[in-house]
Amino acid sequence: MKLRYGDKFILSDNKGNTWLITLKQGGEFHTHYGIIDHDALINFEYGDEIRLKGGSLWILKPTIENYILKIKRKTQIMYPKDIGLLILRCGVKNGDYVLEVGTGSGALTTALAIAVQPDGKIDTYERREDFLELARKNLREYGLDKYVKFHHMDILKAKLKANKYDAVFVDIDSPWLIVEKIWRALKGGATAAFLIPTYNQLEKLLNQLDNYFIDINCIEVFYREILMRKGRIRPSFRMIGYTALLVTAKKVNRDVSTT
Amino acid sequence: MKLRYGDKFILSDNKGNTWLITLKQGGEFHTHYGIIDHDALINFEYGDEIRLKGGSLWILKPTIENYILKIKRKTQIMYPKDIGLLILRCGVKNGDYVLEVGTGSGALTTALAIAVQPDGKIDTYERREDFLELARKNLREYGLDKYVKFHHMDILKAKLKANKYDAVFVDIDSPWLIVEKIWRALKGGATAAFLIPTYNQLEKLLNQLDNYFIDINCIEVFYREILMRKGRIRPSFRMIGYTALLVTAKKVNRDVSTT
Amino acid sequence: MKLRYGDKFILSDNKGNTWLITLKQGGEFHTHYGIIDHDALINFEYGDEIRLKGGSLWILKPTIENYILKIKRKTQIMYPKDIGLLILRCGVKNGDYVLEVGTGSGALTTALAIAVQPDGKIDTYERREDFLELARKNLREYGLDKYVKFHHMDILKAKLKANKYDAVFVDIDSPWLIVEKIWRALKGGATAAFLIPTYNQLEKLLNQLDNYFIDINCIEVFYREILMRKGRIRPSFRMIGYTALLVTAKKVNRDVSTT
Amino acid sequence: MKLRYGDKFILSDNKGNTWLITLKQGGEFHTHYGIIDHDALINFEYGDEIRLKGGSLWILKPTIENYILKIKRKTQIMYPKDIGLLILRCGVKNGDYVLEVGTGSGALTTALAIAVQPDGKIDTYERREDFLELARKNLREYGLDKYVKFHHMDILKAKLKANKYDAVFVDIDSPWLIVEKIWRALKGGATAAFLIPTYNQLEKLLNQLDNYFIDINCIEVFYREILMRKGRIRPSFRMIGYTALLVTAKKVNRDVSTT
Repeated sequence: MKLRYGDKFILSDNKGNTWLITLKQGGEFHTHYGIIDHDALINFEYGDEIRLKGGSLWILKPTIENYILKIKRKTQIMYPKDIGLLILRCGVKNGDYVLEVGTGSGALTTALAIAVQPDGKIDTYERREDFLELARKNLREYGLDKYVKFHHMDILKAKLKANKYDAVFVDIDSPWLIVEKIWRALKGGATAAFLIPTYNQLEKLLNQLDNYFIDINCIEVFYREILMRKGRIRPSFRMIGYTALLVTAKKVNRDVSTT
Repeated sequence: MKLRYGDKFILSDNKGNTWLITLKQGGEFHTHYGIIDHDALINFEYGDEIRLKGGSLWILKPTIENYILKIKRKTQIMYPKDIGLLILRCGVKNGDYVLEVGTGSGALTTALAIAVQPDGKIDTYERREDFLELARKNLREYGLDKYVKFHHMDILKAKLKANKYDAVFVDIDSPWLIVEKIWRALKGGATAAFLIPTYNQLEKLLNQLDNYFIDINCIEVFYREILMRKGRIRPSFRMIGYTALLVTAKKVNRDVSTT
Repeated sequence: MKLRYGDKFILSDNKGNTWLITLKQGGEFHTHYGIIDHDALINFEYGDEIRLKGGSLWILKPTIENYILKIKRKTQIMYPKDIGLLILRCGVKNGDYVLEVGTGSGALTTALAIAVQPDGKIDTYERREDFLELARKNLREYGLDKYVKFHHMDILKAKLKANKYDAVFVDIDSPWLIVEKIWRALKGGATAAFLIPTYNQLEKLLNQLDNYFIDINCIEVFYREILMRKGRIRPSFRMIGYTALLVTAKKVNRDVSTT
Repeated sequence: MKLRYGDKFILSDNKGNTWLITLKQGGEFHTHYGIIDHDALINFEYGDEIRLKGGSLWILKPTIENYILKIKRKTQIMYPKDIGLLILRCGVKNGDYVLEVGTGSGALTTALAIAVQPDGKIDTYERREDFLELARKNLREYGLDKYVKFHHMDILKAKLKANKYDAVFVDIDSPWLIVEKIWRALKGGATAAFLIPTYNQLEKLLNQLDNYFIDINCIEVFYREILMRKGRIRPSFRMIGYTALLVTAKKVNRDVSTT
């Protein structure tokens, strides 16, 4: 399959550097390996090598991880190590209706949209218009905006339909304020997920969750790279030590506090 | 939505114990909380509470993680922390064709089938018939067998179509023996993923991969639970310290060794 | 150097099992490898092999880690991974005066006594008499009791000399209650160390420390074993995921709050 | 105790920056907080505050960790998390004779010298003269050189006395070449420790160790900082993911291979 204008691809130098690029008529891409004329790539395929003066670059198929990590961003984003597990843990799949509170730059939205397509939908809420517009632009760029409804609104003021969503993802400052609200919006027995940055927030959230949800669970995911150099295989000296705590909980159909 | 015969649900005691159950006419489920008569649940919904003499149980919606962890198994299975990240990293989504080498009990197969449905397909190879039959039974039980073609065959003897697959997952003892074979079967620029249990295997695999693939990457994923007890929030003393190393690599269209 | 009555040694089966033993006239040691008659070991040395019907055992020199891990205990003990770092971080060495609050079974006391001998001393406080007596017995057994003064007293009621200690170690339930007290007892510029089991306690302690100490630091230490089997080297599947948080802070000579 | 010329102290700004300084007549210390005239500190004590135009600095007592981390270095050094545990695991204490192979900059030597004083001694071997001279200078600066004998010699050519050392620490490129040599130099039942940077080296070392030692053990130590900000306590985003693998093994009095 030849590349066509509008196609997305990853350029890799096989040294740890990658770029996500859209093929555009008349486009140019400048690297320290040399300049790439987009039009000259029109007969290339995924997997092909581009030989430049400074060395070779390769054309790769973008993955969901590429879409997440290369997203244009104004905010801290969620990482694949966390997103991947949460999608399995919340059971997000084709046909699901998912509520996202705190769109940010749209990194999680991207992964959720891919998971629920072709038959599902994401409702995402963000009170900052600049974030929401960026996310909308990002999702449109990825061809995923048709699976997402963007709501420019403070979730505190939103009216949510009861028992509608198969899963809820919350990434806002004070998630404890909306526990009852998202409990109502979730289907019975479904999962809510919360991204929690500090230990202090954990206790506040727990105190609220305890009244509405069961199976309250909190994890953190670590991730370490092993450097694959011949004869010198070893872990990377540097490692991301923390991103956030991931809390999940299951909706039960009555206040736990009243049972 | 009322439960119907054939529906699957999770029973949880909100104390860390869960069971995956299929509602069957005349069925009974025995717990130390008491006996549950399946027929009595026919008017229940996800999220509902079942009050027994020994305490309450709740009916929850099964997630992909539940399907993975509750699978009937004869083998070590892959875990959600690893599967979730690999699906994003390999870009597995609706419509993809995926090759799995080493079906085992079908835990990864389950997650892949959910990711590629409704339009994609999994080809999975397993040389041990008992494993393959168990996996087939597991996938049928989950209603996912229509997305999977089960091959009872040693991958070394299999004839694979060139440039067919959007992603390949390999979980066998000597993956270095099939590097050239899966390279050929993959689409250009697509990702191969390998599950590697020991450090010794890592070097052998690297030596082969280096000739056919670029962006050879190896990671390990850790996962720690935080116990959410009021006033006593702390990490769990026990932790899974290791499952396997995850190697991924990108197919380029010619032998790297000959470029 | 031949073993003599009263000498301590480690017996190892080179399969992960070890025992700390004191050579006693007429003593017997029963293992599933066979029975060892203590008197028969009187001509043995460290490093020697004992051949029994069921296999060999080896006589090893006990280390500080052995003393810590093999201690007779009624309480949770501190682990070498934490103790080793704290001794360096607090600068404990020959000649130091060290205050320990919360003796427990005496595991940390043992390591501290070895670090400050021959010229230093440990003052250790414990309000539970049974714990203190066990610790005293343990230290006497190890020949270290001459470096330790055991105080059966609630630290809240203790009168501590000002500016006396080179380092303070605190392992009690409510350490925030004694921050001012240990600040007074420490020498200027010296280090206090706290063992903190839960996230909830962390905030309470921080709020107190902030008034008296600078360089407030908190860490956790992980530790993973790599199994050294020929051809199958890999990390252990099981790992201790958590023991406690280690907080250290430096005494400055006036309340920070009043500067 | 007033500071005197020649005394060492740590300056801290309580914001994460520290400096190790020796008080010198006529000395000056320049920081972005202002200039400190050494002579003006002659009446100060550990714990005192120095008020400068740009903010306060505090005078703290140097710890063993400070000596290790602030050492003048030309090489990668060992870190306190690893050194602290190894000292306990090898049982290094007052009076011991310790062999160090690969002096480097003297960071480990410093910690060992403090552990064995006042009655023990370190023999350290280094084939690079510039490293050895730096280490000698560092230990002299710390007042610890009297506990160390520095050998400028390739360990392969060194003649070591048999059964002399209570512990051996090895940090060189090809440790498998000297396994038999250090086995001979160690006392029976005592511990050898090896610092191993890559997975490839691990297998080579294991193959040699297996013939002479028992209880071959390998670990890695992780270490994560928790940032203690009021109301926002959370782990640090950055973490050191790896330094080296730590292998320890116990000398038995005959070749294991011949038993």
